[in-house]
Amino acid sequence: MAKTNPGRFFEDYSIGQVLHHAVPRTVTVGERALYHALYPARHALYSSDDFARSCGLPQSPIDDLAAFHVVFGKTVPDISLNAVANLGYAEGRWLKPVYPGDTLRSESEVIGLKQNSNGKTGVVWVRTRGLNQRDEVVIEYVRWVMVRKSNLDAPAPETVVPELKKALAPGDLVVPQGLNFSDYDFVQSGENHRWDDYKTGEMIDHVDGVTVEEAEHMLATRLWQNTAKVHFDLTFRPDGRLIYGGHVISMARALSFNGLANAQMIVGLNGGAHANPCFAGDTVKAWSEVLDKADTGVPGVGALRLRLVATKGGEPFALKTDEGRYRPEVLLDLDYWALMPK
Amino acid sequence: MAKTNPGRFFEDYSIGQVLHHAVPRTVTVGERALYHALYPARHALYSSDDFARSCGLPQSPIDDLAAFHVVFGKTVPDISLNAVANLGYAEGRWLKPVYPGDTLRSESEVIGLKQNSNGKTGVVWVRTRGLNQRDEVVIEYVRWVMVRKSNLDAPAPETVVPELKKALAPGDLVVPQGLNFSDYDFVQSGENHRWDDYKTGEMIDHVDGVTVEEAEHMLATRLWQNTAKVHFDLTFRPDGRLIYGGHVISMARALSFNGLANAQMIVGLNGGAHANPCFAGDTVKAWSEVLDKADTGVPGVGALRLRLVATKGGEPFALKTDEGRYRPEVLLDLDYWALMPK
Amino acid sequence: MAKTNPGRFFEDYSIGQVLHHAVPRTVTVGERALYHALYPARHALYSSDDFARSCGLPQSPIDDLAAFHVVFGKTVPDISLNAVANLGYAEGRWLKPVYPGDTLRSESEVIGLKQNSNGKTGVVWVRTRGLNQRDEVVIEYVRWVMVRKSNLDAPAPETVVPELKKALAPGDLVVPQGLNFSDYDFVQSGENHRWDDYKTGEMIDHVDGVTVEEAEHMLATRLWQNTAKVHFDLTFRPDGRLIYGGHVISMARALSFNGLANAQMIVGLNGGAHANPCFAGDTVKAWSEVLDKADTGVPGVGALRLRLVATKGGEPFALKTDEGRYRPEVLLDLDYWALMPK
Repeated sequence: MAKTNPGRFFEDYSIGQVLHHAVPRTVTVGERALYHALYPARHALYSSDDFARSCGLPQSPIDDLAAFHVVFGKTVPDISLNAVANLGYAEGRWLKPVYPGDTLRSESEVIGLKQNSNGKTGVVWVRTRGLNQRDEVVIEYVRWVMVRKSNLDAPAPETVVPELKKALAPGDLVVPQGLNFSDYDFVQSGENHRWDDYKTGEMIDHVDGVTVEEAEHMLATRLWQNTAKVHFDLTFRPDGRLIYGGHVISMARALSFNGLANAQMIVGLNGGAHANPCFAGDTVKAWSEVLDKADTGVPGVGALRLRLVATKGGEPFALKTDEGRYRPEVLLDLDYWALMPK
Repeated sequence: MAKTNPGRFFEDYSIGQVLHHAVPRTVTVGERALYHALYPARHALYSSDDFARSCGLPQSPIDDLAAFHVVFGKTVPDISLNAVANLGYAEGRWLKPVYPGDTLRSESEVIGLKQNSNGKTGVVWVRTRGLNQRDEVVIEYVRWVMVRKSNLDAPAPETVVPELKKALAPGDLVVPQGLNFSDYDFVQSGENHRWDDYKTGEMIDHVDGVTVEEAEHMLATRLWQNTAKVHFDLTFRPDGRLIYGGHVISMARALSFNGLANAQMIVGLNGGAHANPCFAGDTVKAWSEVLDKADTGVPGVGALRLRLVATKGGEPFALKTDEGRYRPEVLLDLDYWALMPK
Repeated sequence: MAKTNPGRFFEDYSIGQVLHHAVPRTVTVGERALYHALYPARHALYSSDDFARSCGLPQSPIDDLAAFHVVFGKTVPDISLNAVANLGYAEGRWLKPVYPGDTLRSESEVIGLKQNSNGKTGVVWVRTRGLNQRDEVVIEYVRWVMVRKSNLDAPAPETVVPELKKALAPGDLVVPQGLNFSDYDFVQSGENHRWDDYKTGEMIDHVDGVTVEEAEHMLATRLWQNTAKVHFDLTFRPDGRLIYGGHVISMARALSFNGLANAQMIVGLNGGAHANPCFAGDTVKAWSEVLDKADTGVPGVGALRLRLVATKGGEPFALKTDEGRYRPEVLLDLDYWALMPK
């Protein structure tokens, strides 16, 4: 009996199936320090315990995206080992901050299946939940991937395509318990633009860029225990190791500090596309568009819906070609909700 | 008087001499996080405090190999600064888990000496012990190296070649106090193969590979405070910095998760050869052979004796040429004992 | 209204102005572990909590230079975003050790201004202070930079050139409270040379070298939240990303362990010049000169004034050309005070 994990194929999934992903992980100040070494991350709430306490939290949480990457990384051996493409995200919510010392694990429920007409692949939708050591759900999101069939004779499952929200409604967003921006220090946070200063439709060029190195994206991806071969093995990908999409997300989000320093907490992920692959040597830049603004119901805390675009060159604010396709230099088109002091 | 350390030469060693190595080191969750960033390490006992507690330990220990590297690194300025070759390891035992907050130091006793017939070099055997802040021995192992003479006129010492065990007997292995696999969670650990499922002679191809980068092996080697010039200074090694052999050991061990996810704790090192040098750009892969199985005396805890081979290409399971030499693509041939739930 | 920070120009500074720099940072054992991974740092006081306690401190502090880099990094967006050159340092003092868990922030007072005769640039002197969560000043230093004017029509300010000490006097140095070398362990520290063994004028070649990689200096520089574009964006610096000068300082200081293992704590920075830029691929080596020796008033604790020179090749101890300029291979010429057991 072979001892190594071949991964799951399309015919191995069924609606309602719950996959308990392996290898729980205790995250610590070590992961926090590495996050600051890997990304130009400067949001004050994730940098200073004192700043976090001044905002009503017990200490500085692990970066929301770091928590996402840990939860996501666990799903790779069960969901995307034989994936042809990562097709999308939806209905992502951060429900509880993750603190140093917390232990995270992940589970995914299969909520959609659709075999492709070629009979060789199919699309699998899963709702993934990240849980802490108290069995509290800290993150949940839907993701869909195209997966190969191994046995082409396996019958096609009944097609189930889940109905997913185009975007989370403000009422879906969860503001962390105790969060309070009434003593918010706009000098320490780095910018004095508050929620009221942003307008729907506003575009922000984040100006800075980082040329990515092989060692960096591999350190990051391993840190999340995402060990998919495509990111590490140059003999498997002779034209260049594919950089984990989450590395681009974190890089772009960190770059967005310059113009969005007060978009402190990520609470919702409406959708996202990895428009083109990223390789070592690419210089990642970022721009944002304010898509929407909303009240959260918590006094002083506003929500901003943002498009975050990462590019490897080209002009800021250029997204698609005349044919409606992503321009070749666009790496990421992410749609998320963040909390900001009003 | 020169202030810098020239290292010891062959004539500087004598039987029974005890070398107290410098620079004690407190290891923390920072080192743990870096270990996860540097290697695709996923063994659950070293990833999750909760999983470790479910196995009877107070928290997740520092990876056994990380502890070994810290102990080993301290010996370099006294043992291998003028070494021509690292010849072997034997009788390595992990006696106590190392936890975040522990402070490690090392000492070595000279137990063997043999001048080579050329009169220019000799072999030095040392038994090294790693101790924690409570003066408990946490690791011990024998290592022998070929060292240059500085004064060729120095008389040859009496030849003493220690008798070393080819392999530790099961009774030599120390199971950490309290270790208990009765509540072991095979879903969380990542595989459901237990001790009973492995057969002596079984071969496992660990499938995955990692192409190594300069920055990574230097970060790792420095982390263990091993500052041997050959690993860092390209002007000293213009054809390529030699990668610390321990980096290959850790990489191969981490890759072996895929097929040996339940070989949780390393408790014995029977021997090991760095068959060929490893350089940046090499893609490290690994395979294992089950050499032996043994009871530990602790209910539910079995021991597996494993050969772990790291390669930089070639076919899995190919080890030596017809002439009995290591094939040129073989990097490491390690023989160790690990603990696994029965 | 543009949301991104354009940085300050020469005309934006005025004498007496106090800039409160953004983004406080909690430093932890994670930062400590990364410091050991990034630099060949082996000073025992910063490596072992037990060694630190044997010297009268509550635990091992964060490396003095790491603390400096954190304080310095915060000043970049306000001081050197539009700087043409970093001209010098003076009167740097470490006033309190920084421990894991401390939260650092920075503020700078403008103490000098001098417009250059070209009318396009000017020199700005600031005294920067790093404070911890108890509002205690842990580090202070003067730095001056040449900054561009944005509005060339802005009137030149009155010239104020601060009087700065060429070197701190021994009485200016602050020995950390409780520091006590009476139980100092010269075996654990790695060398048996004490303060009494060093002579003014003595030169020490630190022998070892490290060839620097892109990923390493970017990890380090980001860790200090110094996000100046020149260090990260290859499209902005097509001939090579400029390595943060502080990376060279830390590398050279770590290399100086070999010959100065007992120069444990840095307490004063008299001056420093980044003589030539450093790029990835350069092999950094270091040598030191003992410039002065002094009593500290604390029994058993001596102070050594050291010149620390980093080079990228060339002969040790060669510093300037016949014309009095730094030789092209010299990267750094630093003048500092360190504490050593007598």
